[in-house]
Amino acid sequence: MRTIDWVNGTIRIIDQTRLPAELVTVDITDLDELVGHIRSLAVRGAMALGVAGALGMALAAQQARPPGELDQALDQAADRLIRARPTAVNLSWGVEQLRRARAAGADRDGLLAAALAVRDADIATNRALSERGAQLLSGTSRLLTHCNAGALAGVEIGSALGVIGFLHDQNPLEMVYVPETRPLLQGSRLTAWELGQHGIPHRVLVDSAAAGLLLAGGVQAVVVGADRIAANGDVANKVGTLAHALAAKHAGVPFVVAAPESTIDLATGSGAGIDIELRDQDEVLTLAGRRVAAPASTAWNPAFDVTPAELITAIVTERRVIRGRADAG
Amino acid sequence: MRTIDWVNGTIRIIDQTRLPAELVTVDITDLDELVGHIRSLAVRGAMALGVAGALGMALAAQQARPPGELDQALDQAADRLIRARPTAVNLSWGVEQLRRARAAGADRDGLLAAALAVRDADIATNRALSERGAQLLSGTSRLLTHCNAGALAGVEIGSALGVIGFLHDQNPLEMVYVPETRPLLQGSRLTAWELGQHGIPHRVLVDSAAAGLLLAGGVQAVVVGADRIAANGDVANKVGTLAHALAAKHAGVPFVVAAPESTIDLATGSGAGIDIELRDQDEVLTLAGRRVAAPASTAWNPAFDVTPAELITAIVTERRVIRGRADAG
Repeated sequence: MRTIDWVNGTIRIIDQTRLPAELVTVDITDLDELVGHIRSLAVRGAMALGVAGALGMALAAQQARPPGELDQALDQAADRLIRARPTAVNLSWGVEQLRRARAAGADRDGLLAAALAVRDADIATNRALSERGAQLLSGTSRLLTHCNAGALAGVEIGSALGVIGFLHDQNPLEMVYVPETRPLLQGSRLTAWELGQHGIPHRVLVDSAAAGLLLAGGVQAVVVGADRIAANGDVANKVGTLAHALAAKHAGVPFVVAAPESTIDLATGSGAGIDIELRDQDEVLTLAGRRVAAPASTAWNPAFDVTPAELITAIVTERRVIRGRADAG
Repeated sequence: MRTIDWVNGTIRIIDQTRLPAELVTVDITDLDELVGHIRSLAVRGAMALGVAGALGMALAAQQARPPGELDQALDQAADRLIRARPTAVNLSWGVEQLRRARAAGADRDGLLAAALAVRDADIATNRALSERGAQLLSGTSRLLTHCNAGALAGVEIGSALGVIGFLHDQNPLEMVYVPETRPLLQGSRLTAWELGQHGIPHRVLVDSAAAGLLLAGGVQAVVVGADRIAANGDVANKVGTLAHALAAKHAGVPFVVAAPESTIDLATGSGAGIDIELRDQDEVLTLAGRRVAAPASTAWNPAFDVTPAELITAIVTERRVIRGRADAG
């Protein structure tokens, strides 16, 4: 089951807005439809959006009429895709891959091949880094992850959840602890669902319960994904990651980041140079549409936090293991 | 405005189930009514429940008919009050204070006086420890607290929020950060409301965002309450407290516990001896009555965590400042 794929001339996605209540796939035959599903977060996650951008361009190329209008169709498609979520860097990146293929002379079929190559590269990258991560953490049986760095954020294999999946294939895991990941609950909604699909034992907990669990010896390793890695090894990831890293350090538990090389941003020297996106206050102040806090209260709602390199045991990519400064033992 | 009080021959409470949407007080003239409000958590918090137990006994004594049936009325009242929330130690403690007064010969009026003394002692204790805490933290202007250790958990002055209130009286505070306190959101529902009532600037954040805030220098001190303090200085408090303490330690920010002497349990040697109450999984797995996680997922839902003494800068009580082992700065 792939989060996003090309099937019988259409783009097939898992509609993540319906999870975990039901698993629904949608076959997309039209670019407007794809743009709508990107906007509604039916398809989300950095890697999956890159593939969505590439497949969207390929779909537009297939449908260009007459064939001579291919370039015009691609320009229009690129514009509409990028405007669907303007801040999603990977979406633009996926679109750009297809523009380059066209510039290099690809025709319709060549463009489809280029999009499928983007898809396949995502799968291969995540497989490689997940296998390497599982090798590094071989023998650990009680793990904790955060947010959703799973198949739903990629095509077929996640990063952190990919590591956990390969570990489970080696030896059935005892327990994976899943912080719910406030405010948007990607942990309880998506990660817990993915683990259930793979038959991996798991328990959800409120984010702030992880520290007590770690200090009590309940977890042998923490493994998370990354949104951006600075040149010095500082890691920006979903808010809450830092607190788990601090607790892991105090408990002497390895803290591993699993992410593709493309996440490493050598132009950013350290975490201090990473802008933290502040999101809508209502994500914190309301619950299921109902106001929770007093009417006059405001919220501070950062999407990410930065974990200093000194708290990280290792960063695992598809090419290498970068040993961090944290000595977990 | 008192959370619980004796007014014109009735027990007056703030109905906390209506907060923060509206501030409603209820005048209770009947023991059954009081028991119902304790059960529904309209009145809650360790200190407030102690006073509720004492005032409930006084109410029963006032209404005993004929007056000769005072002892029978007290026995029945004690039984019904304690069964309202059997695990609430302070509720039983408040009931016990009135039993002792009766055993020492108190009549109806004497019993009412004893109950009012329990109420007044709570106010005096919290005032003393709050003033001492404010003295200790004098000059700090950006603070973080957790859960609700405020007036709503006591009679008129909280412990941690009492400290914050006195600090604000000395010098208007710049900002108080309020972690929402999952799963039951006492931070966003109650603490943010109390701060708003006092005109203290505050912002709500998801619990796991506190670490990033602390490491970025956004907070000058953390002050929290306590549910139990072991003989070695380890502190059990609402789940999430430990993560804040770890981040404060890493950031070199003082971490202060404000709690009455009665919280110190010399019979418990260390935090390892404190049983952590596990609560209903649905508090984590559902949101506003709707299932969030996949149907097959389970949760681990501890009510408390234990912060080791080594992470605590000071414990402030109504009598003294106990310096912790944490050197903050």
